[in-house]
Amino acid sequence: MFKVTFKFESGEDVTTFAQEGENLLEVARKTNVAIDAPCGGNASCGKCKVKLVGGEIHSPKTRHISEAEYAEGWRLACVSKITGDVAVEVPDIASAYRSRMKVADLSSKAEIEIFEKAKNDIEAAGIALENSMDVITVKMDVPSLDDTMPDNERLLRTIKKMTGAPKVRMTYQVLRKLAPVFRKSNFEVQCVICRTGQDIFIYDVYAKDEKVVIGGLAVDIGTTTVSALLINMQTGEVIGKASAGNGQIRYGADVINRIIESMKPGGSDRLQKAVIEETINPMIEQMCRASGFKPEHIYRMCVAGNTTMNHLLTGMEGDPIRMEPYIPTFYKTNSLFASDIGLNVNRDAHIIVAPNIGSYVGGDITAGVLVSMLWNRPEFSLFIDLGTNGELVFGNSDFMMSCACSAGPAFEGGDISCGMRATDGAIEACTIDQETMEPSYHVIGDEGQKPVGLCGSGIIDVIAELFRTGIINPKGKFIREGKRIRHDKYGMGSYVLAFEEEAGTEKDVEINEVDIDNFIRAKGAIFSAVRTMLASLDFDVEMIDDVYVAGGIGSGINMENAVRIGMFPDIPREKFHYIGNSSLSGAYAMLYSGEAERKCYSLAANMTYLELSAVPTYMDEFVACCFIPHTDTSLFPSCVQE
Amino acid sequence: MFKVTFKFESGEDVTTFAQEGENLLEVARKTNVAIDAPCGGNASCGKCKVKLVGGEIHSPKTRHISEAEYAEGWRLACVSKITGDVAVEVPDIASAYRSRMKVADLSSKAEIEIFEKAKNDIEAAGIALENSMDVITVKMDVPSLDDTMPDNERLLRTIKKMTGAPKVRMTYQVLRKLAPVFRKSNFEVQCVICRTGQDIFIYDVYAKDEKVVIGGLAVDIGTTTVSALLINMQTGEVIGKASAGNGQIRYGADVINRIIESMKPGGSDRLQKAVIEETINPMIEQMCRASGFKPEHIYRMCVAGNTTMNHLLTGMEGDPIRMEPYIPTFYKTNSLFASDIGLNVNRDAHIIVAPNIGSYVGGDITAGVLVSMLWNRPEFSLFIDLGTNGELVFGNSDFMMSCACSAGPAFEGGDISCGMRATDGAIEACTIDQETMEPSYHVIGDEGQKPVGLCGSGIIDVIAELFRTGIINPKGKFIREGKRIRHDKYGMGSYVLAFEEEAGTEKDVEINEVDIDNFIRAKGAIFSAVRTMLASLDFDVEMIDDVYVAGGIGSGINMENAVRIGMFPDIPREKFHYIGNSSLSGAYAMLYSGEAERKCYSLAANMTYLELSAVPTYMDEFVACCFIPHTDTSLFPSCVQE
Repeated sequence: MFKVTFKFESGEDVTTFAQEGENLLEVARKTNVAIDAPCGGNASCGKCKVKLVGGEIHSPKTRHISEAEYAEGWRLACVSKITGDVAVEVPDIASAYRSRMKVADLSSKAEIEIFEKAKNDIEAAGIALENSMDVITVKMDVPSLDDTMPDNERLLRTIKKMTGAPKVRMTYQVLRKLAPVFRKSNFEVQCVICRTGQDIFIYDVYAKDEKVVIGGLAVDIGTTTVSALLINMQTGEVIGKASAGNGQIRYGADVINRIIESMKPGGSDRLQKAVIEETINPMIEQMCRASGFKPEHIYRMCVAGNTTMNHLLTGMEGDPIRMEPYIPTFYKTNSLFASDIGLNVNRDAHIIVAPNIGSYVGGDITAGVLVSMLWNRPEFSLFIDLGTNGELVFGNSDFMMSCACSAGPAFEGGDISCGMRATDGAIEACTIDQETMEPSYHVIGDEGQKPVGLCGSGIIDVIAELFRTGIINPKGKFIREGKRIRHDKYGMGSYVLAFEEEAGTEKDVEINEVDIDNFIRAKGAIFSAVRTMLASLDFDVEMIDDVYVAGGIGSGINMENAVRIGMFPDIPREKFHYIGNSSLSGAYAMLYSGEAERKCYSLAANMTYLELSAVPTYMDEFVACCFIPHTDTSLFPSCVQE
Repeated sequence: MFKVTFKFESGEDVTTFAQEGENLLEVARKTNVAIDAPCGGNASCGKCKVKLVGGEIHSPKTRHISEAEYAEGWRLACVSKITGDVAVEVPDIASAYRSRMKVADLSSKAEIEIFEKAKNDIEAAGIALENSMDVITVKMDVPSLDDTMPDNERLLRTIKKMTGAPKVRMTYQVLRKLAPVFRKSNFEVQCVICRTGQDIFIYDVYAKDEKVVIGGLAVDIGTTTVSALLINMQTGEVIGKASAGNGQIRYGADVINRIIESMKPGGSDRLQKAVIEETINPMIEQMCRASGFKPEHIYRMCVAGNTTMNHLLTGMEGDPIRMEPYIPTFYKTNSLFASDIGLNVNRDAHIIVAPNIGSYVGGDITAGVLVSMLWNRPEFSLFIDLGTNGELVFGNSDFMMSCACSAGPAFEGGDISCGMRATDGAIEACTIDQETMEPSYHVIGDEGQKPVGLCGSGIIDVIAELFRTGIINPKGKFIREGKRIRHDKYGMGSYVLAFEEEAGTEKDVEINEVDIDNFIRAKGAIFSAVRTMLASLDFDVEMIDDVYVAGGIGSGINMENAVRIGMFPDIPREKFHYIGNSSLSGAYAMLYSGEAERKCYSLAANMTYLELSAVPTYMDEFVACCFIPHTDTSLFPSCVQE
């Protein structure tokens, strides 16, 4: 056994022991050390870099590590094998998450407006914004030697008499509180109840003079980011909000890698723990602390996430999702309560899960479609959720069809050499001068923040601008020369956005032909999905009345550029609407409104699913889309190259 | 802070730290060291003896410790205060519990016969011995690309189709098992279900070829002893049995002391833990180990215990039980599941609680009455449960009245100087020669076991024989002289059953006038309760057709002697029937038979309760009963002194 030490920027050390030949990334995972590994550890993404600072390790040089980096001690954890005692420095992804939380959902005015609009739209569609939870005051007779009815019967009988409810039940937790609360409050109490038809279920009991707020929690569980809203279930008011990186990320950036990880011994528990104990529970604590709320006063929760996310959250086996015939454990479930999975809210809180409609179209999409209002218009709309997976829904008030494509991690900066998530130091918007070929960009972060890498919206802009200025050709190859354009010894071209001295990092921030190729395949997946789905319905892009673009990735997106690179169809730009994190708004709607919840179930039940891989023309379409903007430029009449 | 070391016969040491002036018994409790303290620690019982073996402690001599014992280092823990580092030896009550388990319920042929008779009686009364749990085999369609219904819907729909059930639900635990079990078993599975009317609730799912036994657990929670039966819910067969001392005993022998303890900070959790984690869970593990059964395959449980026991088990506040107007939290509850209180059975197992009918007549009595068949006969019968509390029920198929009296720990050997529980070394039966005054006795344990003390049935015999032979008078005072009769310097008489050299202990086994007086008060409490209850109904003892004596204490009881000392009414001895642990048999019946469960609820709802302390004549009656056999000897015509 050899000693393995992980060192962090924070100064903290974590030490463990490992056997000769063990994989360093595996050792890190077993020790709960978070190393960023979007590809799941198969040496394809190059993100799991660690720096050797002591001892020895066997680790071949890969294409992701330059000579200079290798000399400095940088190694890929996923290809490193233990050969002796070793100490490595681990770049801290936790701190990246912390910065990312600055760009949490509903933190900007624009996002709040989008959210409020969704609420208004729902209500305008005739869906009542009200739910079955309530607080009632119950005044009982005070017991005496002549009236010795036990506490539980006293409460149940009084409520039945007050309300006419034929059946009133309570939880064990309520039973336990009766004796002290009744006696503190002289048998006049407040009950948190939920009505199901005529019946009443008691969730909690409080003394008569306590201030009672029924808390509810809406959570969007993204593959990359988790966002949550803490609300008042009686008024709908947002009491708290939080976002954080999904703690599962160290087991892989995409759903497939996480499913594979979950099928290893103990894997399902590890992944469940990563999202609940390391991600959602700390967010709950943070929101509660900030708003002076108690987690146990959260009595209902709604979770929206893709099918893999809600299966891993609930500890279900993932393999049947990824293997033919692609069968999830559930689309919809009523069997889930907080105590089942250790969520730090009231242990009897019912957990509503936004319904899945297939293995690759999940609750994030059904919740998103609910607030997109697609189902409430005679005109045909297209809903696009740009996440690690791309999901599309097309339809109107008569029908809806969905499909999913694997865009890969490119939109979130994965698979891109200088790619990064939309956090401090990311270039999120860019223009390039036609003559000088000099870039102008906007970097996320405080004034003076230097660029460190490129996030999704920045990549779209850079590629669109490189193409517009003729620096690259439709295949993404470099065809102009200049000070910012370089070719390596194999002839691979790249464009330098920031030289080392301009950058906030120790190397140039650049984009190369491999990156561009990866991104072209990602946008090609989206556009070919649009084309294939419309074709299967005998529709043409002109018949799309509106496009609703959702997803965390989309917040900085430039629609003009997205069309120019052939990611979205070339229709009038005013038809595109960015609707923010629609999964989170949808979870909010389902949590707060019983009618919205039922509406979402019926939408899901009526939505058809198109398995793209089963459509014979899909692969050809995809290949044709892997150009800027497309092999068939007639599809993009407005995008004539200058 | 001083160091406190507790040393055990086993050689184990437990060390902790305490502040100057802290009470040694409290320190032991905080450290989870079990010191026997039936009186709860108020210096009245003298059982919490520990031996000072190192360091120092401030501990006054009490009447419970002789000069010689004090010199040897014996101290009462409850009056000892920390003054420095100290080490004490603790007599091991755990080992006493282990021996006691030899006399576990249903371990003798006689007890098994009593149990089988109870089952037959129930069935003869027209109560079906069957319940709502079942195992069904479900064969589903195997999914394909054309049939991608999720696992949960596939199961629910197939069961609905098979059974016509309008509603089928499952637990989270079942949901989690679907994916692996379906794929292991090619979509043909076995489900453990429970029917509620037409509806079906799924408790578990197994592969088609697994052997499935639905386990059930019946538990009698006595103040002193806990007994359990593990059964097959489909056949009623007893798979395992166990008994153990109630781990709460170190917080007091009677319910009042335990309630007081439970109201201290954290007390309710401590008492709950003592009975669940230290008592019931180990019993479950023991039974499961012995029978090759898995605890998670126990899907239902029935608990019978007095009102305080079931309230402390469920973590309810006890104070309202002991304080006027004596209001328990529940008589009956449906809100209780295994996971709520950490019982080591299937976490979704429903816990049936035999209903209480008041603060001092609980589920042990309603369960006991259920199997006594009192409610099924036109003749009048008296049911007496002889525990730490004495409870009585009188009635027939038309009416039933109950009452409770505090007998104190005397029947179980508490409050008696050489008293002990019915374990190895206890004299359980005795005769005394009229001439020589020499005793003959039977000692519990292996051949050759020497007497250590007296258990309840032994005390009854000794007192009856001392009275019959004229050694004591009706007041319990010694009036003959002899080698076995002694008087101390204060004139207090005693009778030596075994001199030190005959005994299995380092001192004489004797009974003194204080012991006899304590016991007379205990039997007086029972008999005065009988008299008061009958009088309140205008009944006379002659009208009692049968007397059913229940309780662990009663197993060795000599009815003739119990009448002779005035504990039971003087009616023909053949009218007395020992019915063993009727609380356990009743719990078994409620667990195994849904009809028996409902019957017990209706018995409880129709049983009236007489609060003895509210009857003006009760105290006079009690005082009159504190003689052997009674101040009014005409009540005991058959007991003429020889």
